[in-house]
Amino acid sequence: MATLIAPTNHSPLEDAEAIRKAVKGWGTDEKVIITILGHRDAIQRQKIREAYYELFQEDLIKRLESELSGDFERAMYRWIVEPSERYALLANIALRHADRNYDVIVEIACALSPEELFIVRRTYHNRYHHSLEEDVAANTSGHLRQLLVGLVSSFRYGGNEINVKLAQSEADILHEAIKLKDKNGNKDEEVIRILTTRSKIQLVATFNRYRDDHGIAITKKLSDEASDDFHKAVHIAIRCIQDHKKYYEKVLRNAMKGGGTNEDALTRVIVTRAEKDLNDIKEIYYKRNSVHLEDSVAKETSGDYKKFLLTLMGKED
Amino acid sequence: MATLIAPTNHSPLEDAEAIRKAVKGWGTDEKVIITILGHRDAIQRQKIREAYYELFQEDLIKRLESELSGDFERAMYRWIVEPSERYALLANIALRHADRNYDVIVEIACALSPEELFIVRRTYHNRYHHSLEEDVAANTSGHLRQLLVGLVSSFRYGGNEINVKLAQSEADILHEAIKLKDKNGNKDEEVIRILTTRSKIQLVATFNRYRDDHGIAITKKLSDEASDDFHKAVHIAIRCIQDHKKYYEKVLRNAMKGGGTNEDALTRVIVTRAEKDLNDIKEIYYKRNSVHLEDSVAKETSGDYKKFLLTLMGKED
Repeated sequence: MATLIAPTNHSPLEDAEAIRKAVKGWGTDEKVIITILGHRDAIQRQKIREAYYELFQEDLIKRLESELSGDFERAMYRWIVEPSERYALLANIALRHADRNYDVIVEIACALSPEELFIVRRTYHNRYHHSLEEDVAANTSGHLRQLLVGLVSSFRYGGNEINVKLAQSEADILHEAIKLKDKNGNKDEEVIRILTTRSKIQLVATFNRYRDDHGIAITKKLSDEASDDFHKAVHIAIRCIQDHKKYYEKVLRNAMKGGGTNEDALTRVIVTRAEKDLNDIKEIYYKRNSVHLEDSVAKETSGDYKKFLLTLMGKED
Repeated sequence: MATLIAPTNHSPLEDAEAIRKAVKGWGTDEKVIITILGHRDAIQRQKIREAYYELFQEDLIKRLESELSGDFERAMYRWIVEPSERYALLANIALRHADRNYDVIVEIACALSPEELFIVRRTYHNRYHHSLEEDVAANTSGHLRQLLVGLVSSFRYGGNEINVKLAQSEADILHEAIKLKDKNGNKDEEVIRILTTRSKIQLVATFNRYRDDHGIAITKKLSDEASDDFHKAVHIAIRCIQDHKKYYEKVLRNAMKGGGTNEDALTRVIVTRAEKDLNDIKEIYYKRNSVHLEDSVAKETSGDYKKFLLTLMGKED
């Protein structure tokens, strides 16, 4: 379930006019911007952008970029662009970032549906004049490259069939690969093949088989052993495929752990899931941490950024 | 230019009725079937299938399968299904075939446009309840697998930009890889990266750069050296990307070379290109062989199969 609270009826023209008023002249009325855009779904936001352009011959996104700043600006930018553009943007930022964040690449490739991922690839073409896999491949090498390119290029079968025998044999292969990990990497190519080509439902059956046979979840086993970039990516891929909500809960938890806050991760999860299943993720978070996610977020953030995130989480002031 | 001669106006209902007459009762009037279906484009054939089903509650494809036989039946089947289904079928047959014909996999992955290839992948899901890359990966291993999975999963950027510096550096990488081929395979992964992720126009610039630097076409160099399955697949990929019409001319030439005839290859090229660019391929064939393609085909084939192929080639009796 989503957390976003959006009206069923709204007037794109009135919204555009109200936003214009909020950004015109000296100063900006951030509250108005949050109240409107923090309560509109993807299609509504798109209509507001169109209405704004028609009325004022100005790109609303560019205007907001110049009016807002810091974490709030970045969160609003990620929110207001279309979802496929947002993922293309997140992937591109991850690839350009100094210490490349392959987590985000794996997350996008594995948490989205196969059709959604394909639309992101098309959007990436239009936005960056490259293919996503081209940029991923140019930034990586060896088995990590093979895995990441395979994941972002995947178009998994979406049907419900499970091949039980295959789940058994591939659970065995994964077991062998994890066991041999530090000795050689001969089984890694089989791990890559399995993770990049099988349907999600088949993979979940394989992971279940693994747990039944070995008395430990494959993710747990891997997190005990994951050391290099390749095995970290394998770990994240499996977690996103097995249960992306639990995965996102952990991203949020880690983002607010210890002293600092990872605003990029916090923003990313809230902005990408608010319209989808952030309510479920909130419940998992509460069960795991005995604290409401909104309370954690409120403690870690401040100002308009805080107001905006809480609005997206369905928490009114 | 296409060779198919299709009327701008036709009545799907009348066509369906005429075909019904031709298949009803004892015996089949193949001539009528060829005259009608050999002169209808993909959309028209689809409409005939729909009209036939509405009128007679029967699947036309299944009916034709049971009425026709041999090479003629196989050619008609490949012709009457929708293009994306045809490619999915050709890929699946190639994978199930005893001595696996990776040529066809590479050809489909590299000769189609990125968008066409994606539609084939979606059709493959619907038809086989697997992903194409899943079946390719399960049948192969090592660098060959990496190359083939990369090619069928590719969604290349389709824009016109060429990066000249990149063409130079990647032409150098290809040169090194070919030079070192028999000693080790360290450069093979770079060859795979380049061939599976770059846009076609960028790759053509890279191949041109190679020829300018080394005085020999990369395809020529490779065909002198291609020995194993991996290097053969690399060779075909480069040829399909560089000039798929010249590639198809050679497939036709080889299919009719020496004593026997490779009907599968002959059918595949004529059926897949008749609506696209078979006329251009015919011209290349004539220039290369000083014989008209129709004459070669007429010599190598007979009966209804011959009549049908010649009809698709725009050659009336």
